[in-house]
Amino acid sequence: MQRLFLQEVATRDGFQNEARFIETVDKIAMIDALSQCGFAKIEVTSFTSPKAITALRDAEAVMQGIRRNPTVEYTVLVPNVRGAERALACNIDEANLVMSVSEPHNRSNLRMSREQSFAQLSEVVSVIGQGPVAINVSLSTVFGCPMQGDVPVGEVLHWVERFADLGARGVTLCDTTGMAYPSQVEALSRAVRERFPELQLTLHFHNTRGMALANALAAIEAGVDRFDSSLGGLGGCPYAPGASGNVCTEDLLHMLQLMGFNTGVDLDRVLAVAAQLPGLIGHDIPSQILKAGKRLDLHPIPAHVASLEKQVPSARTQELRP
Amino acid sequence: MQRLFLQEVATRDGFQNEARFIETVDKIAMIDALSQCGFAKIEVTSFTSPKAITALRDAEAVMQGIRRNPTVEYTVLVPNVRGAERALACNIDEANLVMSVSEPHNRSNLRMSREQSFAQLSEVVSVIGQGPVAINVSLSTVFGCPMQGDVPVGEVLHWVERFADLGARGVTLCDTTGMAYPSQVEALSRAVRERFPELQLTLHFHNTRGMALANALAAIEAGVDRFDSSLGGLGGCPYAPGASGNVCTEDLLHMLQLMGFNTGVDLDRVLAVAAQLPGLIGHDIPSQILKAGKRLDLHPIPAHVASLEKQVPSARTQELRP
Repeated sequence: MQRLFLQEVATRDGFQNEARFIETVDKIAMIDALSQCGFAKIEVTSFTSPKAITALRDAEAVMQGIRRNPTVEYTVLVPNVRGAERALACNIDEANLVMSVSEPHNRSNLRMSREQSFAQLSEVVSVIGQGPVAINVSLSTVFGCPMQGDVPVGEVLHWVERFADLGARGVTLCDTTGMAYPSQVEALSRAVRERFPELQLTLHFHNTRGMALANALAAIEAGVDRFDSSLGGLGGCPYAPGASGNVCTEDLLHMLQLMGFNTGVDLDRVLAVAAQLPGLIGHDIPSQILKAGKRLDLHPIPAHVASLEKQVPSARTQELRP
Repeated sequence: MQRLFLQEVATRDGFQNEARFIETVDKIAMIDALSQCGFAKIEVTSFTSPKAITALRDAEAVMQGIRRNPTVEYTVLVPNVRGAERALACNIDEANLVMSVSEPHNRSNLRMSREQSFAQLSEVVSVIGQGPVAINVSLSTVFGCPMQGDVPVGEVLHWVERFADLGARGVTLCDTTGMAYPSQVEALSRAVRERFPELQLTLHFHNTRGMALANALAAIEAGVDRFDSSLGGLGGCPYAPGASGNVCTEDLLHMLQLMGFNTGVDLDRVLAVAAQLPGLIGHDIPSQILKAGKRLDLHPIPAHVASLEKQVPSARTQELRP
């Protein structure tokens, strides 16, 4: 069984987008539950300014309050030197740095040019230094930018290289607004893996246009073995109201398990945690498996069928659902 | 560019599940619009008893009212001899027969045993005879039954063979409740194609567990070139309230076009028809592309980014969406 590594991002990428503040104790309880599911990595929170992203203003309290499972890496989003200092004080395993490979998207999202972002993140790397804390860089819009359109592969490779040269352990290729499609995913994944075989490569999909699971399989075809996903599909997309956000952890996991991949993650435990989400955030979530059940969650045979042999053929056709 | 054939089923498989009766003129207008989109086949309606499925009680009026495009095959669901006679009087191109390869599902859905269904459908084949009307058989639950669980591949091949022996031109492998997963789809598609290379093979997916697009790609990998899909993803699943139903035509088409397949279908025309659906049926639809737009439907650059060079780096990080 091929080993895959799943990384849960709901408590950062998901909660960040919620209008309702999730209480610190609830965040901690959820992360503690997720720590027992078998994820390779959990993105706990974000050390952005508490004023800018109030949903995650309790980053220190959450990082210090969770019970850490030594088999899980705990990563946090770090935007700048101040965030790095705060995060280091909380004994993180990994700092996740973010910038966009699209100039207009970076300016729109981070309010600075890509070069300014790179300079700022280079300082973060210096502050974190050569210690035990790993550096990952999440590159946004590598499969397309909602303002610019297509993003050249050469641009993506350029930014991967600059962060690889800085000493990043890993890079995440992010399909920020669900523009990736399977053949593109396979090609870009191959290109990055061939040129940077030593990097820990993660793929981060959104299901905005329904292709997230197909994209994950295309990435696996290209040799990718590590994926971000979000419990319940939490995490919206500002450019597509009503559309799905991050690829849903339980939907991805359910498919991968059926196909015989070894993810190390316990689907039933994940579903038990996901079931708490609607109550916690106050709205429905785009999880298909939570609604439909697992493939072999069977239904009782209707009463009228119970006595199979006594059944008489009937001209009345009740329902026809091929 | 590899040629694929898309078959639209919303006006039968979708409308059949709607609580609101869609007016005959509206059905006709929608089918006429779909006839100009480039579909290989349209499943127009069902010649079941008007009392059993009242939503499609206007089958004759619809079949006789549409303007037929000679490049499109018009197929209808035919459950029995009475339905076949009614359908033949309307000059159909193809009769679509339905039974389940799972005994409890067939009894539950059609209220008779599989052998009784087969006998009844054999009579239908006799009535239709060797004339110009083709026979297709949609086999339900070939990827799993919500009551029985797994369905042996041998069972599926057995029923395909019996209908091939009866002279059916085509067979549709139906994932009735969204239990199919990609590796299974590829294996079963290969098995059926190898054993029955002369049959017109269609795959019919539901997105109940989010895997429909991934399943379609797995089928293409196995050489399948023909798919049912439903405009707007119309057509619910009685076993999973709230979950998606049929694979959504525009979502499937959008992905296939991005990947370079030649479907012959005009996505913009399809989207224009799909946009009318919520008003017609009175509720939201699970179409992702209708909500999110096509991949390259770009968004304006926000005003604060307009003057790129004047931008000053800011410690305030607005949003971070990798």
